[in-house]
Amino acid sequence: MARAIDFYFDFSSPYGYFATARIDEIGRKHGVPVRWHPILLGAVFKITGAGPLPTLPLKGGYFTHDVPRSARALGLPFTLPARFPFGTVTACRAFYFVEKSDPAGAVRLARALYDAAFGKGRDICPVEAVVGIAAELGFDPDWVQAGIQAHETKELVKTEVDAAIGRQVFGSPFFFVDDEPFWGHDRLDQVDLWLEKGGW
Amino acid sequence: MARAIDFYFDFSSPYGYFATARIDEIGRKHGVPVRWHPILLGAVFKITGAGPLPTLPLKGGYFTHDVPRSARALGLPFTLPARFPFGTVTACRAFYFVEKSDPAGAVRLARALYDAAFGKGRDICPVEAVVGIAAELGFDPDWVQAGIQAHETKELVKTEVDAAIGRQVFGSPFFFVDDEPFWGHDRLDQVDLWLEKGGW
Repeated sequence: MARAIDFYFDFSSPYGYFATARIDEIGRKHGVPVRWHPILLGAVFKITGAGPLPTLPLKGGYFTHDVPRSARALGLPFTLPARFPFGTVTACRAFYFVEKSDPAGAVRLARALYDAAFGKGRDICPVEAVVGIAAELGFDPDWVQAGIQAHETKELVKTEVDAAIGRQVFGSPFFFVDDEPFWGHDRLDQVDLWLEKGGW
Repeated sequence: MARAIDFYFDFSSPYGYFATARIDEIGRKHGVPVRWHPILLGAVFKITGAGPLPTLPLKGGYFTHDVPRSARALGLPFTLPARFPFGTVTACRAFYFVEKSDPAGAVRLARALYDAAFGKGRDICPVEAVVGIAAELGFDPDWVQAGIQAHETKELVKTEVDAAIGRQVFGSPFFFVDDEPFWGHDRLDQVDLWLEKGGW
């Protein structure tokens, strides 16, 4: 029996956003918790030599087809923000700061950040944007803003990103069921099957 | 109404092999021909800066999980050849040489090469291996061997690879339905849907 699904993603990854449409349902179906881990793909790309999709030779043009097409296939609202790719360190910090005292609230915040960015095409890079989205969910804006800037939060993000790299996470979304790795929202069927069968 | 599915692949791509399990059925279902285009990913990687999956930092280890697991999920026989990745220029030349006079025979040869490589784990790099597999299908070995070595065949492969790069093909398998690009065997559901709906 698997103990959890670990769900790694970068807030600027549309494929990570796509995964949020199904991940909790898969967890519920199998009675396992989903542990959300926002990461900073920029740190990963320093190791792999990859980069954000739109910047890659040949791949960049494909991205503009595949992302909106996949969103439509999934029936998800989708708008690419004018600034893309965008920095996600503030969003990450807010997540881990909130998570310390309110894990379920942090997941609600992550969903709201993704919906703002890719559902509505809003810019979630600035501190004010992240704090504003948190405030819409009922979090105290001053508390969130202080949390984002706290040294301890920055260390927490670094620890999480290092841990992801330690687990060989190289893209977003990325999942583990126990130690079995799955890359891409298009592997969620296999995640589902793995939880059902305990491997195959 | 789409006119065809263009199916690009490298003979050393296990994901291309996976695609062969469904591609013809999808073509038949929608009454469109499948045009098989073996290519040389090495030429593509010179542009994208990528490389064979097992050689990439962080990604290499994932490959050893995802490929056999996906083969099992698809119910396909799978053995990774001892030499991997392997050169596929000879297999490519044999395909395009045979295709000139026998398009259906070339597809049978492509399937036989893939089945030998990934179904049985055989080394399909040497000329003798490719000629032997063609002979098993009833092709005259001397004819195939001469075709592989003909200057005209080499030019044909170069033309096809350049054409693929011109269409921004950057991985294997890669499909076009008319001009809509799809990357990965895990996009075959979208290829199917696109043919059904004419886009969405």
